[in-house]
Amino acid sequence: MLKNILDSRYNYQPGLSIDCVIFGFCDNQLKVLLIKTAYSDKWGLPGGFVSVDEDLDLSANSVLYKRTGLEGIFLRQFATFGAVKRNMGHFNETIFDMLSTPLEDRDWYLQRFITVGYYALVDFLRAVPQPKNDEEIVEWIDHNAVPDLILDHRNILDKALETLRMELNLMPVGYNLLPDKFTIPELQKLYEAILGRKLDRRNFLRKITSIGILTKLDEKKSNVAHKAPNLYSFDQDKYNEVVRNGLHQGW
Amino acid sequence: MLKNILDSRYNYQPGLSIDCVIFGFCDNQLKVLLIKTAYSDKWGLPGGFVSVDEDLDLSANSVLYKRTGLEGIFLRQFATFGAVKRNMGHFNETIFDMLSTPLEDRDWYLQRFITVGYYALVDFLRAVPQPKNDEEIVEWIDHNAVPDLILDHRNILDKALETLRMELNLMPVGYNLLPDKFTIPELQKLYEAILGRKLDRRNFLRKITSIGILTKLDEKKSNVAHKAPNLYSFDQDKYNEVVRNGLHQGW
Repeated sequence: MLKNILDSRYNYQPGLSIDCVIFGFCDNQLKVLLIKTAYSDKWGLPGGFVSVDEDLDLSANSVLYKRTGLEGIFLRQFATFGAVKRNMGHFNETIFDMLSTPLEDRDWYLQRFITVGYYALVDFLRAVPQPKNDEEIVEWIDHNAVPDLILDHRNILDKALETLRMELNLMPVGYNLLPDKFTIPELQKLYEAILGRKLDRRNFLRKITSIGILTKLDEKKSNVAHKAPNLYSFDQDKYNEVVRNGLHQGW
Repeated sequence: MLKNILDSRYNYQPGLSIDCVIFGFCDNQLKVLLIKTAYSDKWGLPGGFVSVDEDLDLSANSVLYKRTGLEGIFLRQFATFGAVKRNMGHFNETIFDMLSTPLEDRDWYLQRFITVGYYALVDFLRAVPQPKNDEEIVEWIDHNAVPDLILDHRNILDKALETLRMELNLMPVGYNLLPDKFTIPELQKLYEAILGRKLDRRNFLRKITSIGILTKLDEKKSNVAHKAPNLYSFDQDKYNEVVRNGLHQGW
């Protein structure tokens, strides 16, 4: 597929790419979707070029789909990266030869690429990547065990996580990531996975209930040895209202 | 100067521009820095192209300086805009003829330009624009009286203001925008100018003092008829701490 991309450079906006940071949550773990191509021994974020006839924000989903088969993910733009030497050395003559890139096309790939970063947080059991070709490996990797990445992808990943953490102060997170009925400790685990640190149980309980998005159900978690915790669900209307208006009523 | 830009297209990243939304605050008013070129009857945001040998984030300041003479402004990137037809019709044969653009260069300007938006909030008395040439007018315009803008600049401006308003929920604002000693009503006016609406006096007082960034001085505002209000200053250490850690201690 990379060969296809290289063959059709005139269909793409010059010097521009997109990179997607897809965080997955499941079983109390935060993972990141990474991809490994045939021509590099390092992992990277799934990304690609932008068609000249496609709106930038729409093309992010095309890029993700083409590289991973993932569809229907709501991607948010978070930052654009453009250091002068950011893709220097990424493509080189050896790789061009391997991919039979025509000589006259090679300069196109050697120019500086500005990349627009998009991120999403999904339930990774519902978002199963199906690589679009045999030359690439796509995998969910624990965000604490991310290896060396190509280019400035580590920086892009860090910035995406920083944005996601900041979002926790602006809006609630959890809908679509937890089962319909969940316990407060399960919700706390989600916040802890994103923040990368333990939270105080009482403080979390106090803060999360004060937002007013939780409905306490008349049920307890089953299959629990003793002191079964209460089950909750999100009050969908209030949840959406807080997403719209922000977590802190503002000024 | 536009002619200079047009003459040296090979020095610039193809299909990429930068636009700067500079908000100015002074005398309780929120203004926006706008520019009008010789070849359009509409106002627009100050912007320009990105040199191939300059980091994207650094080039924002060069662009701003080249168009307005403004220096030393801390610009924050907030979003990148790339609708397919966003600059369609902006340059045309009439303008190219007027600027004597070589025929072989014209296609370069007709391609889609992705633009990276940067914004800043400054004291506009300290940031006096000095247009770099006679063909352009640069002015501070009341943000409530912004006329029709070129391209998608209205959209870019709206998105910048939305980002600035969101920031009020994340960090304090005011340092460098108010005199060293100020009253709570003066600070409230700043928040009201940004938010575009009146705030309740008591609520504002309660919220702003609870942040812990204000030092109450043993002085009152002079030149005030009666009931002179107290003067305050920012506790610089605490202010910086809150900027670093966020307004709401988080989770």
